[in-house]
Amino acid sequence: MTYCLGIVNRFGIVMGADSRTNAGVDYISAYRKLFDFSVPGERVILISTSGNLSMSQGVITQLKREINNHEETNLYTLSTMSDIAHYIGCKTRQLQDRDRPWLERENIDYHCSFLLGGQIQGEEPQLYLIYPQGNFIQATKETQFLQIGETKYGKPILDRTIKDDTPLDALAKCALLSIDSTMKSNISVGPPINLVMYETNSFVIRHKLQLRLGDPYLAKMRKLWEDHVRQAFDSMPNLEWEPEESQWNEDILID
Amino acid sequence: MTYCLGIVNRFGIVMGADSRTNAGVDYISAYRKLFDFSVPGERVILISTSGNLSMSQGVITQLKREINNHEETNLYTLSTMSDIAHYIGCKTRQLQDRDRPWLERENIDYHCSFLLGGQIQGEEPQLYLIYPQGNFIQATKETQFLQIGETKYGKPILDRTIKDDTPLDALAKCALLSIDSTMKSNISVGPPINLVMYETNSFVIRHKLQLRLGDPYLAKMRKLWEDHVRQAFDSMPNLEWEPEESQWNEDILID
Repeated sequence: MTYCLGIVNRFGIVMGADSRTNAGVDYISAYRKLFDFSVPGERVILISTSGNLSMSQGVITQLKREINNHEETNLYTLSTMSDIAHYIGCKTRQLQDRDRPWLERENIDYHCSFLLGGQIQGEEPQLYLIYPQGNFIQATKETQFLQIGETKYGKPILDRTIKDDTPLDALAKCALLSIDSTMKSNISVGPPINLVMYETNSFVIRHKLQLRLGDPYLAKMRKLWEDHVRQAFDSMPNLEWEPEESQWNEDILID
Repeated sequence: MTYCLGIVNRFGIVMGADSRTNAGVDYISAYRKLFDFSVPGERVILISTSGNLSMSQGVITQLKREINNHEETNLYTLSTMSDIAHYIGCKTRQLQDRDRPWLERENIDYHCSFLLGGQIQGEEPQLYLIYPQGNFIQATKETQFLQIGETKYGKPILDRTIKDDTPLDALAKCALLSIDSTMKSNISVGPPINLVMYETNSFVIRHKLQLRLGDPYLAKMRKLWEDHVRQAFDSMPNLEWEPEESQWNEDILID
């Protein structure tokens, strides 16, 4: 499985991804899922991937090839983030057209999804989710994060913390905690974790990070988090239990 | 959807459930999903349900009927919790035999699951999960909680906090927070929340609680939790970002 997330607010963008890939629990390996296609000073383009590895790798390879071949349309020539999202969607569709019949007949899931985050001169920072079908949505002020892969374990922490005025550094810690929670609850999501933080209007990636298995920061963060959770329980007001013979009990007793 | 959980450790058992049922987002209603079949002084039996409502209601109704009819085998006459888990599994299978063909041909999901928690004189407190197929597993010292329904959003908080020496009161708060996290992330899980806390060897339910929509305790708990999460971020050591031109970046740049 995979877990990738992106967060955008007025201060910038944070993107994070695990690196575990598995074809059954008996075949686990590590592949990068977060890619940086930025052109410093001009455009920042970050892409993370989930789903069928041959499909997502195929799309990433194609994106690179078209840049290297200086093709007329590529990640460097498109003028808006929205165009880039559509372009990635089209590449996904092309690859599906080629491979889908072969995978489908073996009941192999051929779907792959992408998160696209970044900023092009003249635009605000933007974050997109590109679906396996090639269509896409954009994060907005009301919903400032997007996820792909194993999304549920890491969502509550995001639901509770991300605001438009959350500083970038806090967003980065929040992303890391969201990934760590997912790793703890789903063994098919695993290190190394890649994390990138981008500051609005800087047009260059100044903050990136790779945390490997057993990284002391991860261990420290996990310990600190668990201590805080325990403190939160301790400081929570006691539950006001109902009187012993209250209606609720009567209600559900046998007739 | 539904979210029910049970936690057991040496101090006792906590069980909690939401009450929202839906047949599509345009048909939402509230049904109790946590039932108390205890015989004070002799046995404590708590059952929570998820899945197809007609099936789970059918099983609960049958369990009640067999008690009321003083049938030879019923929840009051079985001598171990394990027998009770098997008995509930059998009732589920019987009902499935009757209704499944009719539901299956309309592509209606007929599955339902149960959590069973309690204690019978002569045994330790026990917690079981009964699968839709009627087989079941028991919570152990290594895995002290079980969940049914929408299990993922509420799992990280349990994974991080539940230990064999966690006091019952803290387990109850943890269960409530797990349900609240799920409600916040999945709109098809909703109040009222029913919560029961049982102390080992008391053979009577002394603590029960129903929290309705807008309950001040829930609001207070949510606020306090979010404050603690923010404090946790603030107190987390700063991320040690890599030098700007580090290998990681090179790695993923275009060839």
